[in-house]
Amino acid sequence: RYGLAEKEDQVGVVTGLAWTSVGGDLLQIEALKLPGKGRMKTTGKLGEVMKESIDAASSFVRSVSPELGVKPPKFETIDIHVHVPEGATPKDGPSAGIAMVTSIVSVLTGIPVRKDVAMTGEVTLRGNVLAIGGLKEKLLAALRGGIKTVLIPEENAKDLPEIPANVKEGLTIIPVSHVREVLGHALVRKPEPVEWDEAAEEAAAAARKASPGEGAAATAH
Amino acid sequence: RYGLAEKEDQVGVVTGLAWTSVGGDLLQIEALKLPGKGRMKTTGKLGEVMKESIDAASSFVRSVSPELGVKPPKFETIDIHVHVPEGATPKDGPSAGIAMVTSIVSVLTGIPVRKDVAMTGEVTLRGNVLAIGGLKEKLLAALRGGIKTVLIPEENAKDLPEIPANVKEGLTIIPVSHVREVLGHALVRKPEPVEWDEAAEEAAAAARKASPGEGAAATAH
Amino acid sequence: RYGLAEKEDQVGVVTGLAWTSVGGDLLQIEALKLPGKGRMKTTGKLGEVMKESIDAASSFVRSVSPELGVKPPKFETIDIHVHVPEGATPKDGPSAGIAMVTSIVSVLTGIPVRKDVAMTGEVTLRGNVLAIGGLKEKLLAALRGGIKTVLIPEENAKDLPEIPANVKEGLTIIPVSHVREVLGHALVRKPEPVEWDEAAEEAAAAARKASPGEGAAATAH
Amino acid sequence: RYGLAEKEDQVGVVTGLAWTSVGGDLLQIEALKLPGKGRMKTTGKLGEVMKESIDAASSFVRSVSPELGVKPPKFETIDIHVHVPEGATPKDGPSAGIAMVTSIVSVLTGIPVRKDVAMTGEVTLRGNVLAIGGLKEKLLAALRGGIKTVLIPEENAKDLPEIPANVKEGLTIIPVSHVREVLGHALVRKPEPVEWDEAAEEAAAAARKASPGEGAAATAH
Amino acid sequence: RYGLAEKEDQVGVVTGLAWTSVGGDLLQIEALKLPGKGRMKTTGKLGEVMKESIDAASSFVRSVSPELGVKPPKFETIDIHVHVPEGATPKDGPSAGIAMVTSIVSVLTGIPVRKDVAMTGEVTLRGNVLAIGGLKEKLLAALRGGIKTVLIPEENAKDLPEIPANVKEGLTIIPVSHVREVLGHALVRKPEPVEWDEAAEEAAAAARKASPGEGAAATAH
Amino acid sequence: RYGLAEKEDQVGVVTGLAWTSVGGDLLQIEALKLPGKGRMKTTGKLGEVMKESIDAASSFVRSVSPELGVKPPKFETIDIHVHVPEGATPKDGPSAGIAMVTSIVSVLTGIPVRKDVAMTGEVTLRGNVLAIGGLKEKLLAALRGGIKTVLIPEENAKDLPEIPANVKEGLTIIPVSHVREVLGHALVRKPEPVEWDEAAEEAAAAARKASPGEGAAATAH
Ligand SMILES: [Ca+2]
Ligand SMILES: [Ca+2]
Ligand SMILES: [Ca+2]
Ligand SMILES: [Ca+2]
Ligand SMILES: [Ca+2]
Ligand SMILES: [Ca+2]
Ligand SMILES: [Ca+2]
Ligand SMILES: [Ca+2]
Ligand SMILES: [Ca+2]
Ligand SMILES: [Ca+2]
Ligand SMILES: [Ca+2]
Ligand SMILES: [Ca+2]
Repeated sequence: RYGLAEKEDQVGVVTGLAWTSVGGDLLQIEALKLPGKGRMKTTGKLGEVMKESIDAASSFVRSVSPELGVKPPKFETIDIHVHVPEGATPKDGPSAGIAMVTSIVSVLTGIPVRKDVAMTGEVTLRGNVLAIGGLKEKLLAALRGGIKTVLIPEENAKDLPEIPANVKEGLTIIPVSHVREVLGHALVRKPEPVEWDEAAEEAAAAARKASPGEGAAATAH
Repeated sequence: RYGLAEKEDQVGVVTGLAWTSVGGDLLQIEALKLPGKGRMKTTGKLGEVMKESIDAASSFVRSVSPELGVKPPKFETIDIHVHVPEGATPKDGPSAGIAMVTSIVSVLTGIPVRKDVAMTGEVTLRGNVLAIGGLKEKLLAALRGGIKTVLIPEENAKDLPEIPANVKEGLTIIPVSHVREVLGHALVRKPEPVEWDEAAEEAAAAARKASPGEGAAATAH
Repeated sequence: RYGLAEKEDQVGVVTGLAWTSVGGDLLQIEALKLPGKGRMKTTGKLGEVMKESIDAASSFVRSVSPELGVKPPKFETIDIHVHVPEGATPKDGPSAGIAMVTSIVSVLTGIPVRKDVAMTGEVTLRGNVLAIGGLKEKLLAALRGGIKTVLIPEENAKDLPEIPANVKEGLTIIPVSHVREVLGHALVRKPEPVEWDEAAEEAAAAARKASPGEGAAATAH
Repeated sequence: RYGLAEKEDQVGVVTGLAWTSVGGDLLQIEALKLPGKGRMKTTGKLGEVMKESIDAASSFVRSVSPELGVKPPKFETIDIHVHVPEGATPKDGPSAGIAMVTSIVSVLTGIPVRKDVAMTGEVTLRGNVLAIGGLKEKLLAALRGGIKTVLIPEENAKDLPEIPANVKEGLTIIPVSHVREVLGHALVRKPEPVEWDEAAEEAAAAARKASPGEGAAATAH
Repeated sequence: RYGLAEKEDQVGVVTGLAWTSVGGDLLQIEALKLPGKGRMKTTGKLGEVMKESIDAASSFVRSVSPELGVKPPKFETIDIHVHVPEGATPKDGPSAGIAMVTSIVSVLTGIPVRKDVAMTGEVTLRGNVLAIGGLKEKLLAALRGGIKTVLIPEENAKDLPEIPANVKEGLTIIPVSHVREVLGHALVRKPEPVEWDEAAEEAAAAARKASPGEGAAATAH
Repeated sequence: RYGLAEKEDQVGVVTGLAWTSVGGDLLQIEALKLPGKGRMKTTGKLGEVMKESIDAASSFVRSVSPELGVKPPKFETIDIHVHVPEGATPKDGPSAGIAMVTSIVSVLTGIPVRKDVAMTGEVTLRGNVLAIGGLKEKLLAALRGGIKTVLIPEENAKDLPEIPANVKEGLTIIPVSHVREVLGHALVRKPEPVEWDEAAEEAAAAARKASPGEGAAATAH
């Protein structure tokens, strides 16, 4: 079934798009959340650039986590493992960035990813979506694999005229310029924000640290 | 005796199947559980892809551990060592993934592995079983080695027509698509799930952390 | 939009200038502040020299942090991630040093960076600005990208006579010899200093350490 | 004296057998136990495969430590250093595995190793002994070096007919299939087991952890 | 201004002398002291030998720190960053050793370094000054750069007859055999020693460790 | 003065002997003891084999430390830095092992090393001295450098007949087979042993750990 769209909406499972010398391909991306200490593990024979795109995706997600309903201290208590299957095939490049963001957000929020959406786009630390290469090959792979909707960088919209008409008819192609749009299209529902006042939390934490035994001492007599 | 099926059902010892330029071979996989701090050690001249398949196997197992009767905090108190003997022979590739999962689950649960079962299949973080190469050579090696039952990826069932009739007669070949099926066939009994309410446990842990001395202080006077 | 000036003033986003065999280019630099433990992460296929220039920038900023309104212990509670997008393009060299300083200061203080300012210059641990190469190509790229003001090292002012007149008319070119001048031109407002008496703070910390339970004990009876 | 049997029974000093392009040789293996934190250090220009065989030997020993009279928590308080002298000569291969086990067990238990015993055999995590190469050259080296007894893998017993008669007359050659047999022949006395109920110990440790101050609080009034 | 003497006496900024295939050059060395945990960071495209000379310089300084007015525990609370600007130029060799010592001592004591002094010499762990190469080229660079005084190893005094007369007239050249002499010439004032009785301090620390709660308990009733 | 015997007896400074393609040389070895956490630092462009010989020397010393008047817990509170000057010259090989032991023992005990003694010999974890190469070249270098006494491995005594008569007349050559003999000849006085009953100390430490607050609680009421 590899190379085909997923059979059901799943948490943490996202379909990216790869482009190699022999054409485009679907790229299944999986993330898991485990009890831990804030570590990120990546596997699947990933090159340095793809690993860095996961780092950037992860930092972006952490920087907006209250918007996603996740309080920042949560990250100190979990590990995240991102795996790209077909472990013998080398993968590289930054273009899976928005898929990495989506996978990490899904696993953190528990919100499943729509099974018939694929996506390609580099992500920046601010969540902006940058242009990618191989658009035609990637769209052909998406069509072949049963995908219905493909998210592409706004910066690549200028390449759409060169895409064959049957591909554009068979797919809903949505140009995006920020990850917020990506999440809106890819997740089955919108995350609910949580209140987080950083300054207030820091002050409280500092107070706790300054007098660790105070609570206990107040009741001892 | 190397290259032959095990003589008895053992905890943590699983028979995988390797495929090299000179044919197939049995691959004995051993796991041990030791008191520790959540570390994973791997030895046996393993290539990067096989080490990553052990990482993926391990994360999958941790993510479903309550199903296996193991509470997640247990992992912080043990180390797991996975060794593939014949230490001078290089080994690589992702196809031992389901054997790695089985070995880790056996050692965590204490449930022995059936000595006459061999298996091959890449595993994903969700426990899905992906296709492998060298099916014919691996099945021949299994037959030669006295194996009775071989678990293969569902995705490889399409290759069975090319397998010689005598091999298919001498072996029970079972296509599987998820690790749950693998464990059902390979372990001598089914693991018993344990209750684990992650949210409740987290709240309790947070409460303990917030007032470490509280229990003691309440009884001091 | 890559290769063009930013559309709005943003926190942590700075425009540097790169010089390669095929000419000059704008170099977007992004920094994020995350809750953490004083770690620095860098991504974007950066060479060793550029990574070291980020280290030098970071140490300089830490050494003058009270001037910037940031108390030194703050650094133990945050991680900083510096990313240079277009993750597939290798980048190297020390000439983004002053841009790195500006990006880190912006993210620490929360003060946005003027969107129409670009800059190039190596930075030393004392905040001095050292000469760079490729001045002409970098200024051409700035003009092409819609930049209005370019900060260059004082040591490169001697190269200005060789710059075409139309470039010098289209840009405000400001030679600088210390990072303080850079921040004055690049940030939308000046950081407000905070009082920090290192010796007094150290003595207080030492006192707290020497008698950790003292405060509590004083009220127990 | 290097290349000759030891002059007395010593703790932690074991004679292995090496096989190189220029023939067989005795291989002195030394282990030391030091106060520490559970680390393993290895020196003597050892290749990766020999280092992994030391890891496997060490994990096997830890997994059976109560049989050897050593309680598992002991390992957290010591470091073990395994050195193979003649530090300028590269050494590699898994065949010193059973000698590594013997050296580690000797140093942990304080029981000396018989000075006139040499041994060769790969070890698995379960303590099984696997076949090695170069049997003839190794036995010749043992005879030359004044060794009386050589332990070889049961799997190599099939090679004994090719060994010259004078070698077989000059040495007592003992095929072994598990490390327990190795220790029986190599140590000057049998280790005395210690009681260790893992589940009970874990429960007790968990109880201590849950209420660290309890013992103290119970006596405070 | 690079390649010229500094304009004012600064803390932590020392002028070394480099010697390359194209002649001699001034080598600005900068050190910063930051709140930290005893770490040493080095940047500036430094080779292994130069990094090791910084390690040796640092250990020497720590070993004599009470002479410099710095109590040893201070080192556990600071990080030191040594940077050699012109970050794109590779630098190596041990001959900046005494400059590294001077830079570290200046930053630790807060005593500025005379701006018109340059120096070259390898340093040992005991503070001895060893011979260097390229004396003529280095002295020429010093003269060219406006330096007034150059400290050279006593072992190189034998090379002075080969130095051109105008160089020897334009510079005060001082042979030194120990770092104490170097500091006397390079720092604008002498550091004031602090009392430090290691044995007494260790005993006090051990006592505090043995009964952490004692002080508090003595006042609880 | 490099290449000549030391001018006075110093703590931690030992003269080894090197042998290269261009002849023998004196090798000054320096060790320093610093407040720390049990780390070993080595500098001086040392190859892997020489670094491992320092590790072996260090473990040997720790294993016999009570004989040397040093209680084992002391090692957790210090760092040791071993440096071999002339930092630009690569050094390798195991033959400085006994010099490394002597340097470490001198620095730990504070007992100076005789300035006119040089030594060469590999050391094992048990303190045995193994044969070295280049004996003639090393002895010539010792004579040239003003050394009076040279310690060589007992195993090399068989090479003495080939040494020129004038060398043997100019030097006292002492064959040694264990490090204890080395220390007897090289240190200006014998270390005084200290009592250390490991089992008793462990029991006491375990007791302290089991009831950390007990002492305090006993006096609280
Ligand atoms: Ca595929
Ligand atoms: Ca890509
Ligand atoms: Ca085999
Ligand atoms: Ca494989
Ligand atoms: Ca560009
Ligand atoms: Ca540059
Ligand atoms: Ca030998
Ligand atoms: Ca071997
Ligand atoms: Ca220069
Ligand atoms: Ca140099
Ligand atoms: Ca020399
Ligand atoms: Ca040597």
